[in-house]
Amino acid sequence: MGYLEDFEPGQKFASGRLSVEAARIKSFAMEFDPQPFHLDEDRARDSFFKGLAASGWHTAAMTMRLLVASELKPAGGIIGAGFDEMRWPRPVRPGDELHMESEVLEVRPSKPRPDQGVIKVRTTTLNQNGEPVQIFVGHLIVLRRPVSSGRMAAKSAMSETRAWTPVIARSCNTIASS
Amino acid sequence: MGYLEDFEPGQKFASGRLSVEAARIKSFAMEFDPQPFHLDEDRARDSFFKGLAASGWHTAAMTMRLLVASELKPAGGIIGAGFDEMRWPRPVRPGDELHMESEVLEVRPSKPRPDQGVIKVRTTTLNQNGEPVQIFVGHLIVLRRPVSSGRMAAKSAMSETRAWTPVIARSCNTIASS
Repeated sequence: MGYLEDFEPGQKFASGRLSVEAARIKSFAMEFDPQPFHLDEDRARDSFFKGLAASGWHTAAMTMRLLVASELKPAGGIIGAGFDEMRWPRPVRPGDELHMESEVLEVRPSKPRPDQGVIKVRTTTLNQNGEPVQIFVGHLIVLRRPVSSGRMAAKSAMSETRAWTPVIARSCNTIASS
Repeated sequence: MGYLEDFEPGQKFASGRLSVEAARIKSFAMEFDPQPFHLDEDRARDSFFKGLAASGWHTAAMTMRLLVASELKPAGGIIGAGFDEMRWPRPVRPGDELHMESEVLEVRPSKPRPDQGVIKVRTTTLNQNGEPVQIFVGHLIVLRRPVSSGRMAAKSAMSETRAWTPVIARSCNTIASS
């Protein structure tokens, strides 16, 4: 578990691996992205993708799964305020095995919220050939280390957690504009 | 179905509505974003979100579902090369009813790919109170209208579709850097 003070630019975090199955590509697409190139091998062959390809949002969701199970463990959980950039440079195919690598690019305390800060992280999802299939630069909200220590600190952090909630929108806007 | 020439900045597209159920928030999170604030009401109450909230990637996937069923119908399908900006200004809650509004911001032909172009689109996902829950600015790859007309044109467009495929990565890089 890392507080804002534990992060610094240049730190890298790796993940495990996740296999992509044709059946899940299709069932995800059926619910969320029902287009022929995500649903049916034959129709996908004649499309832009020249074969069945996972929805980009499926790739994003699988990457989140890898991220949550990765070495990157901010205190309070992985809470994304948003992203500045997302690219899908090549399709994800049935049988691909994905993993991800994250790198901390920036660490900054929040001025209006002295109990939290933001880390800017670039996360690259790669297939079994080491080719990037998704690159995104996201902003994660991370707690600052409580000033006091021991059990009282833990209790104080919990109270702070409750106090933050009504300002979610404000925090995120701050992040977006800073 | 719209070719690149049919789009212009300022055009707006609306969607239908989609209800968000607590059970699907949790099952989506179980597979892709297994963190307490997406999985369990009690543990979510004491978290940043102060109550069960959908994963941002679930919101993104639901938005894609709305987008695919919306009035926005580019020729060749909705093919995202990536996006420049994504924000989740407030949480999506069980019982929310979402819809989206898209606006075309830019239309530009691709220089290296004369048979296609890119439209830059801002998509805002709103809840039943008209409050934005997600805003993203994405780049969609759209076919240009084939030069010839009639059945020959359709046949030609199909051949072009096949010819594009090996350059997916190149197209996307072009979009990213242009």
